[in-house]
Amino acid sequence: MSSDEIRLARAYLSRVAEPPAAALVRFVAQVGAVRAAKAVRSGEVPPAVDSETSARRAVDRAQEDLEAAAKVGGRLLVPEDDEWPRWPLNALAIAAANNLRCGVEPLALWVRGAANLAEVTRRAVAVVGSRAASGYGQHVAGEFGFGLAEAGVTVVSGAAYGIDGAAHRGSVTAGGPTIAVLACGIDVAYPAGHRALLERIPGHGLVVSEYPPTHTPARHRFLTRNRLIAALAEGTVVVEAGRRSGAKNTAASTAALGRVLMAVPGPITSISSSGCHELLRSGMALPVTSVPEIVESTGRLGVDLVEANRSTDTGPPQGDAMRVFEALGLTAGHSPEAISVESGVELARVRALLPQLELASLAERVESGWKRSQNGDWRGDT
Amino acid sequence: MSSDEIRLARAYLSRVAEPPAAALVRFVAQVGAVRAAKAVRSGEVPPAVDSETSARRAVDRAQEDLEAAAKVGGRLLVPEDDEWPRWPLNALAIAAANNLRCGVEPLALWVRGAANLAEVTRRAVAVVGSRAASGYGQHVAGEFGFGLAEAGVTVVSGAAYGIDGAAHRGSVTAGGPTIAVLACGIDVAYPAGHRALLERIPGHGLVVSEYPPTHTPARHRFLTRNRLIAALAEGTVVVEAGRRSGAKNTAASTAALGRVLMAVPGPITSISSSGCHELLRSGMALPVTSVPEIVESTGRLGVDLVEANRSTDTGPPQGDAMRVFEALGLTAGHSPEAISVESGVELARVRALLPQLELASLAERVESGWKRSQNGDWRGDT
Repeated sequence: MSSDEIRLARAYLSRVAEPPAAALVRFVAQVGAVRAAKAVRSGEVPPAVDSETSARRAVDRAQEDLEAAAKVGGRLLVPEDDEWPRWPLNALAIAAANNLRCGVEPLALWVRGAANLAEVTRRAVAVVGSRAASGYGQHVAGEFGFGLAEAGVTVVSGAAYGIDGAAHRGSVTAGGPTIAVLACGIDVAYPAGHRALLERIPGHGLVVSEYPPTHTPARHRFLTRNRLIAALAEGTVVVEAGRRSGAKNTAASTAALGRVLMAVPGPITSISSSGCHELLRSGMALPVTSVPEIVESTGRLGVDLVEANRSTDTGPPQGDAMRVFEALGLTAGHSPEAISVESGVELARVRALLPQLELASLAERVESGWKRSQNGDWRGDT
Repeated sequence: MSSDEIRLARAYLSRVAEPPAAALVRFVAQVGAVRAAKAVRSGEVPPAVDSETSARRAVDRAQEDLEAAAKVGGRLLVPEDDEWPRWPLNALAIAAANNLRCGVEPLALWVRGAANLAEVTRRAVAVVGSRAASGYGQHVAGEFGFGLAEAGVTVVSGAAYGIDGAAHRGSVTAGGPTIAVLACGIDVAYPAGHRALLERIPGHGLVVSEYPPTHTPARHRFLTRNRLIAALAEGTVVVEAGRRSGAKNTAASTAALGRVLMAVPGPITSISSSGCHELLRSGMALPVTSVPEIVESTGRLGVDLVEANRSTDTGPPQGDAMRVFEALGLTAGHSPEAISVESGVELARVRALLPQLELASLAERVESGWKRSQNGDWRGDT
């Protein structure tokens, strides 16, 4: 099966089903993209897949969509590509296995820009917040965007007005790669006032979307998109958020995916910071006040651990990861809370490290929580 | 033994020893104030007491000090008085039993004002912070002072410039009682710019000091004084603090005494909030952004529990206190961290409630942590 066939099949499916299409994603995983596309076209699919695809299954614009993407310098990434962000998106697969609502992997990703998505997400942090941001919030987002880029960290955000835009601009100014995840086609300038920014980002990073070219944004698409922002980054910093800000949805996805959630304190007299203070007070988010604190909170350790696991020379987990590993039960599962107490590693970090240890075959999830994996051991003798 | 004799004895000791005088406090607890004063005068005391008292034991100005206090409308409170804040200061006794540096009870307290100290500390919160406060910090301190007074909560602070002064003024404006704990005599206007404020406070509350009249402030006296601010309140709110602010010392005492430590978030661009953010990031302090949150964090539950314990009709602990009580081991001691996980009550609250349960004879401290008390049980049958 040629990669062109696969790409055409996924391009077709990407327009047929409105994400998140959980049944279709599962169906594709079972039979492969090409067979799945053929089955969807003919309508010979299980009922759950049918209900996700019947409305648009006659719309086959795969070739046109690929050409429209190419026209703006874009392309379609599929899971079969080396450039697919396998590791970041694995969080969605883990969430799916745990029946979490945000746990639906994308069928494909439309991207626009010179950067390699797998490479730029190796060390990435999401910086998000209100559209109606204060001068303070925009200043902080810009500084964080700039500082993270200087520290070699990719800034992921949603290209909205306010915090998102300031974060992207800060990163672009420092010459860092930044990733704008859109709720519309990569050829659609939304918001219109960010047309120039969206034209600049591909030179430094990537504009990414689950939606095919010409797709327009819609409220539910922003919410669906937010899980990708959370998944593509090791952690999410909420710079400013009102009590009903969409950023709180990204925050919820971040926590659900076991990623590190951070929030920036601000004046308690500012309504723009009230959502951040709520996240801090509930204990969901860690307070961060500087780029070094963000880097410290997200940590290279997890990344290094994954790197070690990718090679055949699997080394021992380091630092916090080691402490979490040591706190795991040999036979009985422990809750993340209990592991946090036992290891002295804070809960948000524990939640972030457990899936990483799982991927490294060092930990496994059982009914009662997490335990050491029976198959994996980092000690040289296995 | 008349109460006059006791008061004269404690007035004498209050000038002879520089607080905190741990050995003298223990000696007085053993032999009583009158006998202790006699022994100190004659120099016939244990070596540890001698080293605390030998330099000034010839200075007997007890009568003059009592008269100087009376001249400014003040008086000397002694532990033998009904007005003595027995319950709040018990935290110091518990700390002493655990060999904590801040665990030294005052020998007596010079007070000035119409209020009854035991009554106004029944529901009290400390509001402290930098002298070099920002406009934002002073605004927040003033609002909190006003709002706490309106909510029936006494504001305890240190009468310094900046946050302290703003908190006192807010309370005074709302007509609430406020307590200014000084590091000098109650007849000394320090800082000089707060002379008018210090004259107004006794009309609404109390000016309190461990130091006899005419004593001038000194650096170590501020640090010694800070433990009293922490002890007299159910919790301490740090409104603004630089990285080296004296407020961080009060914060440390608050935590050591098992009281609730709170910090106010502020702009991360403001150096005046950096100490608060440090306290939040380390997990030492809870973030608070409003008076209702402060009231919620300090809680009436503990107070009600104590009230119940004072009467013969000991009711069951309520709410959080109940959950903490239920999480206590019957035979083995558990750490506050483990109790927090078990009860689902946040760690800072657990730390605050355990000593209260101890005083209610419901919990006891053992080598391995905290367990249910063997002697006490709230169920009707004991």
